[in-house]
Amino acid sequence: MDLFQQYVNANRDRFVAELQALCRQPSVAAQNWGMKETAELVLARLQKLGAQARLIPVAGGAPVVYGEIGSGARTLMFYNHYDVQPPEPLDLWESGPWEAAIRDGKLFARGVSDNKGNLMCRIQAVEAYLAAYGSLPLKIKFVFEGEEEIGSIHLPQFAQENRALLQDVDGCLWEAGYKDVNDRPNVSCGVKGIVYVELHARGAKRDLHSAMAATVVNPAWRLTWALATLKDANDTILIDDYQQHVRPPTQAEMDALAAIPYDEAKVKTDLGIPAFLRNLTGIELLKKYLYEPTCTICGLYAGYIGEGSKTVLPNHAFAKIDFRLVPNLSPDLVLDLLKKHLARRGFDDIEVILTETGEEVARSPLDSAIVRAAVDAATAVYPTPPVLYPTMAGSGPMYPLCQALGIPAVGAGVGWHDSRNHAPNENIRLADYFEGLEFIRELIARFSRLAN
Amino acid sequence: MDLFQQYVNANRDRFVAELQALCRQPSVAAQNWGMKETAELVLARLQKLGAQARLIPVAGGAPVVYGEIGSGARTLMFYNHYDVQPPEPLDLWESGPWEAAIRDGKLFARGVSDNKGNLMCRIQAVEAYLAAYGSLPLKIKFVFEGEEEIGSIHLPQFAQENRALLQDVDGCLWEAGYKDVNDRPNVSCGVKGIVYVELHARGAKRDLHSAMAATVVNPAWRLTWALATLKDANDTILIDDYQQHVRPPTQAEMDALAAIPYDEAKVKTDLGIPAFLRNLTGIELLKKYLYEPTCTICGLYAGYIGEGSKTVLPNHAFAKIDFRLVPNLSPDLVLDLLKKHLARRGFDDIEVILTETGEEVARSPLDSAIVRAAVDAATAVYPTPPVLYPTMAGSGPMYPLCQALGIPAVGAGVGWHDSRNHAPNENIRLADYFEGLEFIRELIARFSRLAN
Repeated sequence: MDLFQQYVNANRDRFVAELQALCRQPSVAAQNWGMKETAELVLARLQKLGAQARLIPVAGGAPVVYGEIGSGARTLMFYNHYDVQPPEPLDLWESGPWEAAIRDGKLFARGVSDNKGNLMCRIQAVEAYLAAYGSLPLKIKFVFEGEEEIGSIHLPQFAQENRALLQDVDGCLWEAGYKDVNDRPNVSCGVKGIVYVELHARGAKRDLHSAMAATVVNPAWRLTWALATLKDANDTILIDDYQQHVRPPTQAEMDALAAIPYDEAKVKTDLGIPAFLRNLTGIELLKKYLYEPTCTICGLYAGYIGEGSKTVLPNHAFAKIDFRLVPNLSPDLVLDLLKKHLARRGFDDIEVILTETGEEVARSPLDSAIVRAAVDAATAVYPTPPVLYPTMAGSGPMYPLCQALGIPAVGAGVGWHDSRNHAPNENIRLADYFEGLEFIRELIARFSRLAN
Repeated sequence: MDLFQQYVNANRDRFVAELQALCRQPSVAAQNWGMKETAELVLARLQKLGAQARLIPVAGGAPVVYGEIGSGARTLMFYNHYDVQPPEPLDLWESGPWEAAIRDGKLFARGVSDNKGNLMCRIQAVEAYLAAYGSLPLKIKFVFEGEEEIGSIHLPQFAQENRALLQDVDGCLWEAGYKDVNDRPNVSCGVKGIVYVELHARGAKRDLHSAMAATVVNPAWRLTWALATLKDANDTILIDDYQQHVRPPTQAEMDALAAIPYDEAKVKTDLGIPAFLRNLTGIELLKKYLYEPTCTICGLYAGYIGEGSKTVLPNHAFAKIDFRLVPNLSPDLVLDLLKKHLARRGFDDIEVILTETGEEVARSPLDSAIVRAAVDAATAVYPTPPVLYPTMAGSGPMYPLCQALGIPAVGAGVGWHDSRNHAPNENIRLADYFEGLEFIRELIARFSRLAN
C-alpha cells in the first residue's frame, strides 16, 4: 500500500463525514435554497486544503467558488458544481434527500452523484496527494459553480470576465463520470447542448365547473394539441425546419461508437423497459443516444391532480420541456424554430418562456492530452478498462468554459449506472468514491507529464 | 311583512351562523375527509328541526342522511349533498376554504354553493314555515347524500334498496340553482350524464436524467399523443363511433332553447374569454352548452412541476378526464368506446381507470307539477322572472334517484353566476340565500296544491 492509499485509509471516516456534511446542506439552485451557505462551506474546505480560494460573485446568481493550488508547467482545471436538482418527488426517497444516509455501501443524497461527490473527491485527492508526496507536479484550478442545474446562467459571463485566470489552463477534468452496467468506467469528451422552455396555456379568468367545458376554452387541451405537433410517436421531432439543422455524424464519429461496448440487455433490465425507442439496437441505438437531439416533456400540469376526482375546467396548463442539442442546433435557433412552428399552427395563445439561457454543444478532440491522461489513469486504477465516449448524452457549460477558450475537457468521476441523478434515491457507491480518489492521483501525475 | 319573513328576520344571525358552522366542517368525499362528522352534524340539524331522521349506511361509503317531516296528500323530496369538492388550489383562496368568511355580503367557503347553502336553506325554510304557519301542507323527505362529488357511487344502490321509502314521492327539488349574469334565477329540468376516468402512462422503473430520453420511452409523450386523438381543435370528440350515439335534439328541445335569454357578452366578460368555442352564439351556443357531450381534461400531471427547471425524464404521467353525456351516451358505452379507440391506435400501454361509476342522463317533463310549482314560486319571489332550462350542463344522480323511480325533478337554489363551484373562492350572496328561504316556502305551498 503506497503512502497515498495509507493516508486515504487513515482518513477514510473523516472523508466520508465531510462528504455527508456537504450533502446535508441543501443547495437547490432552481429554488434558490441554501446557495450562499453551500458556497461558504465549499470555500472553507478549499481554504482548509491550503488553496488560494475565494468567491467570485456573478450578477444576480450563486457565486463561483474559485481556488488555486500547486505549481508547475502544466495547469489542470477541475470543473464541478455545488448546486443540485430539486429533491421532489419526496415521497419516493427511501431516506431523506438531505439525510446522506449510508446503506449497503452506498451514500444516498440529492446531489451526491451530481455533483457533490466528485467535487469533494477531487479536493480530498489533492489533500492526500500533498500529504503523500509533499507537493503537486502541476497547478490546479478549481472552478465550482452554483448554477449548473439551472443552465449555468452566468458561467459564460464568468468565463469571459475571467479569461485571464483561465488562459494558462491546459486541460479540464469535467464534472462527472459513471460506471456502466458492467462496471466499466466511462470517459467522455463532450456534451450535448440544451435549451429548456415552459409552454403556458391560459383560459378563463379562473377555474370553472367542468360543465362549462362545452363552451369555454380548456387550456389543457390547447397545450395537448400544441405538444402533439412537436414530436411523433416514432420519436421524430416535427418542429418545422428542425431536422435540416441536424448535422449527420461523420465517419469518424460513427467509428467512435463502434468501440463502445453497450450492454443493452442489462440496461433494459436495469431500467425496466422492454425495448429502446424505435426498437433500436447496436450502433443505431448509440447513434440516437449520443448524436440525435431530444425534445422531452420534463413536467406537465393542469387542474386537479390530487386524490380522487374533481370535475374542474382548469384555467391554466403548462409543460416544461428540454431540448438536448447536437451540431448544428443552438439554443437560440431552437427557440426561434419552436415559436414559429407554434405560431404557424395557430397556437399564438401558447406562451413560450425560456427558463434558462441554454447551452451550446461542445466536443473535445479524442486525442487531446487530457483525454489520453484520463483514459490512462482509468486503465491504471479500475479493475475493468474504461470506455471512451465521444460525448455525453447530457449537457453542461463545456462550451463557454472550455471549448470557447481552447481548453480540451474530459469527463470522469465517481458515479455508477444506478446513481439516479435528478431522481429519487440518488446515490454513489463508497467503493467507487475511494477508487475515484486514486483516479485523481493518477490523472494529476500523468497529465503533468503529457504535452497537449 | 308576513310571519315567515318575521321569523326569518328574527333568526337571521343564527341562520347564517348555522350555515357557517356547516361550511367550517370539511367534507371532501374525494379525500374521505370529515364525512362522518358532517353526516352527524346534518343529522343533528334535522333532528333539531323535528324531523324523523337517521343515517342510512351505504356499503363502504358516506351514509345518506335521511329525514321525514310533515304530512299531507303530496310528498316532496329535497335532494342535496353534504360532501364538497377538494379545496385545491389553496393559494388562490382569498380567505380559507373552511373559514366561511363573510365579505361584501357574500359567504366564501368550499361547498357553500355546492351544496351546503341549499341544504341548510331548505332545513331552515321548513323551520320557518312551521314556526309561521304551524304545520306543513305536505310530507317532506330529505335525502342528503355524501358522495355527490365523487359520482354518487352508492346512491343507485340506496335508491333501489329504499324504493319503499321513496314510492310516495310526487316530485323532487334537485340540489341547486343559480342566478345568471342578469340575476335571473334558473330553474332546470335535467342533468347531463358523466363518466370520469384517469389515463395512466408509465415508462422506466424510475424517473431518469432527461439525457436518457433519446432512447427511453417518455410516458408524458405517450399520454400527450393518446389525448390528442380524443378531441380536435374544433372541440369535436374524435373517439371512434362516439358521435353516432349522440341523438340530435328534437324540435321541442330546440324550442326550449329559444326561450332562454343568455347574455353572451356579460358571460364572456365575467369569465374573461374573448369568444366561446367555435365562436358560437345564439341558439347554436346553447345547443352546444346543453345538448352536446364534452370530453374535458380536468387534471394533467407528469414529472417536475415545481419552481424553475428540472431536467428529468418522468416515469409516470396521468390525465383526469370527465365526459359529460347527452342522450344516448351512457357511462358504460363511453368507457368501452374509449378503451377500443386507444387500443386500435396502439395505446395499449395506457391504462384507463374508471374512478367513479358514472351517471346516466336524466330529463324531467317541462310540464310536470314540480317544474310548474318551481317556476311559479320563483316568479312570485324573485325580482326578475326565472329562466327555464330543459337541462343543466352539469351532472348528478337524478336518473337513479328520480327518473328511474318515476319522480319528476327540478333544480333551483341559492347560487349566482359567480358562485365559483369547484373553484377557489366559492361563494353565495347572503341576499340570495334569504330569497331562497322564501322560494322554498312558496314551493311547499304551491306544490301541495298541484296534481302531477
